[in-house]
Amino acid sequence: MASEAEGWILTATGRAPTNIAVIKYWGKRDEGLILPVNDSISVTLDPDHLSATTTVAVSPTFDRDRMWLNGQEISVSGDRFQNCLREIRKLARDVEDVDKGVLIRKEDWQKLHVHIASYNNFPTAAGLASSAAGFACLVFTLAKLMNVDQDHGKLSSIARQGSGSACRSLYGGFVKWAMGDDASGSDSIAVPLAPESHWNDLVIIIAVVSAKQKETSSTSGMRDSVETSPLLQYRAQTVVPHRVQKMEEAIRSRDFASFAMLTCSDSNQFHAVCLDTSPPIFYMNDTSHRIISLVERWNKAEGIPQVAYTFDAGPNAVLISQNRNTAGLLLRQLLFCFPPPPDSELSSYVIGDKSILGEAGVQSMNDIKALPPPFLNKDGSPCQKIAGEISYFICTNLGSGPKLLDQNQSLISPSSGLPK
Amino acid sequence: MASEAEGWILTATGRAPTNIAVIKYWGKRDEGLILPVNDSISVTLDPDHLSATTTVAVSPTFDRDRMWLNGQEISVSGDRFQNCLREIRKLARDVEDVDKGVLIRKEDWQKLHVHIASYNNFPTAAGLASSAAGFACLVFTLAKLMNVDQDHGKLSSIARQGSGSACRSLYGGFVKWAMGDDASGSDSIAVPLAPESHWNDLVIIIAVVSAKQKETSSTSGMRDSVETSPLLQYRAQTVVPHRVQKMEEAIRSRDFASFAMLTCSDSNQFHAVCLDTSPPIFYMNDTSHRIISLVERWNKAEGIPQVAYTFDAGPNAVLISQNRNTAGLLLRQLLFCFPPPPDSELSSYVIGDKSILGEAGVQSMNDIKALPPPFLNKDGSPCQKIAGEISYFICTNLGSGPKLLDQNQSLISPSSGLPK
Repeated sequence: MASEAEGWILTATGRAPTNIAVIKYWGKRDEGLILPVNDSISVTLDPDHLSATTTVAVSPTFDRDRMWLNGQEISVSGDRFQNCLREIRKLARDVEDVDKGVLIRKEDWQKLHVHIASYNNFPTAAGLASSAAGFACLVFTLAKLMNVDQDHGKLSSIARQGSGSACRSLYGGFVKWAMGDDASGSDSIAVPLAPESHWNDLVIIIAVVSAKQKETSSTSGMRDSVETSPLLQYRAQTVVPHRVQKMEEAIRSRDFASFAMLTCSDSNQFHAVCLDTSPPIFYMNDTSHRIISLVERWNKAEGIPQVAYTFDAGPNAVLISQNRNTAGLLLRQLLFCFPPPPDSELSSYVIGDKSILGEAGVQSMNDIKALPPPFLNKDGSPCQKIAGEISYFICTNLGSGPKLLDQNQSLISPSSGLPK
Repeated sequence: MASEAEGWILTATGRAPTNIAVIKYWGKRDEGLILPVNDSISVTLDPDHLSATTTVAVSPTFDRDRMWLNGQEISVSGDRFQNCLREIRKLARDVEDVDKGVLIRKEDWQKLHVHIASYNNFPTAAGLASSAAGFACLVFTLAKLMNVDQDHGKLSSIARQGSGSACRSLYGGFVKWAMGDDASGSDSIAVPLAPESHWNDLVIIIAVVSAKQKETSSTSGMRDSVETSPLLQYRAQTVVPHRVQKMEEAIRSRDFASFAMLTCSDSNQFHAVCLDTSPPIFYMNDTSHRIISLVERWNKAEGIPQVAYTFDAGPNAVLISQNRNTAGLLLRQLLFCFPPPPDSELSSYVIGDKSILGEAGVQSMNDIKALPPPFLNKDGSPCQKIAGEISYFICTNLGSGPKLLDQNQSLISPSSGLPK
């Protein structure tokens, strides 16, 4: 290590998207390395609406590794964080900043400490895979800072050790996490199936369901399922491989009907395995069930799927529409069945890509009150209007993978080395 | 047929219990004959609290078969009813009533019509297997009227053709429905495992959950599961045979821990298969989930299961306690977490075997208000008090099989041949 100014600080800032699995990851074959029992497939969500931004800083003045999440300092002693940091440090290379007169040799990285500041542009509490975006962003940004010369596949295998599904956030569009078979986990990596431009008609509406009770963490839930569900291994070994193949075909050919049927079935089967766990795990609640019923009835009435639904380890619905027109029709139905509380504002009830409100023909709270009952009600099954069950809707699209941001977007002060 | 008085009417009146499966029946391999994809095991419930009473009458003056259920005439044209009637008629034998001067030869039964009146001593709408008790009672009582000389196994194979689970109501105590393998269904019959006296400590509390929406019928739900759930056949072929064997052992040795674990797991797996169906079927709701959580937390806190839960094709919980003491403690917890609405009466909120209220130390609405939080709350997980989610609780016990009632309990007038 050589430097003209002893108090130097180097930083890198990156942004990484979150993702939602359409073929689900549930169950590890190796807890430490986070190796899954089956392949999974996800779509990456638009980072403008759902992403993590992370700045990593290095300085000889830092006396230990530290991290701040959404402004609060958090512990870095966890295995998952330490594994990511260790693996990235192994790949670190020489870094020279001529302007600052700094040269870090690759062997120096073992002795240097980092400060990390990260924030999510969406509520962490909403249960929207914040750890996936967070660990992907951490690994991506550390790799940039440390001049790591590896492809995103290798980085994904490191992010995987932070949070399994984080590996899929290293790419945009459609991504497969290949389970691999090597005991070291070296081949358990993310593989890009198609960029977001391949099928950019798709529109995503996330219904953030008002949570009433604490949920089982996915880490412990998954472990319980592996240990107690008689159905999990059958799903992993027999059902999923076939579905992964079908899903890859559906994505390749942009076959929405097949994509939607596989997505819905696999979400349901994941929750079936949770229910088959002892004690049983319930992530979906009555509101989740009502959203499923709404989508199923609409898809049935149309004769061909218009919308796919999928639920992760919580009650929130992720609804994938074939196109903007369908998304507008869906949003009308959702706003009719789950109107905002009377004293709320439309602008905080439908967030993200608000242009979908235009497709829905809804520009005000009065427009929502004036919505006609959705056509699906003509079959005699009434859709109750229930305010308060949904916190808000996020409208979004498919998105791109991680990217480096400008220095002026840094979350860490270049002088103090602490969060701004 | 010979008779002195042309207007004669002969009647028989029987009562049959309902039952609740602890290893579930879900899926038919033959829709017409109602042959299941796996064995199932049930406990018979006390007919004093949950049973069907049926009177069948025969007279040369009847011009067609007719039936009344709970006082309302209903159609008898359905296949299931017709199959039962046809099969029983085939087995009919000579009947002589010397007092009335009536002799019916077995070949006469093909020409004679019957009137049937049936009622359930529990709400049909509560989703408590009223069809099981109903068809068991119909077949049992017709067999008595027609002097059928067959064991209950044979009668169970006929009741099965009315409603699958009805076959298990031909016996008291613990009953297995052996799936059989003959294409005719002749060996798909109920087999008594143990009489109710074998393990009469068990106490059953049924929480009748206020239903908010119409449910999928079990007939169509089962068909959808067989056609679309990838997990159903694996369950039927691989998981259930092992569980049936374990359950028979648990019953034989009165091993409550094993009985409870198998009962809960199998209920959950049945609902998992429903969720794995396309479109998914949700029989349990948030109230059902809360009851499961209450039981699971209690069982965990005690270190050994105190209570088993099981849910059929609806949100109602059937809770099986090891003994009266445990049932009292359970009822206290249930009444704390699900108190009756303020303006209701205890006597209509806890029905059936009300002596369990004594075990619970609850004799008035004020006693419920004064209940301390259940001990399970000491771990910091609060149990919300939610009134209105439960319609009422039925306390009951194991019960006996069908029996013939006195003529004075007949539901049909001996002079008019119509319901009293």
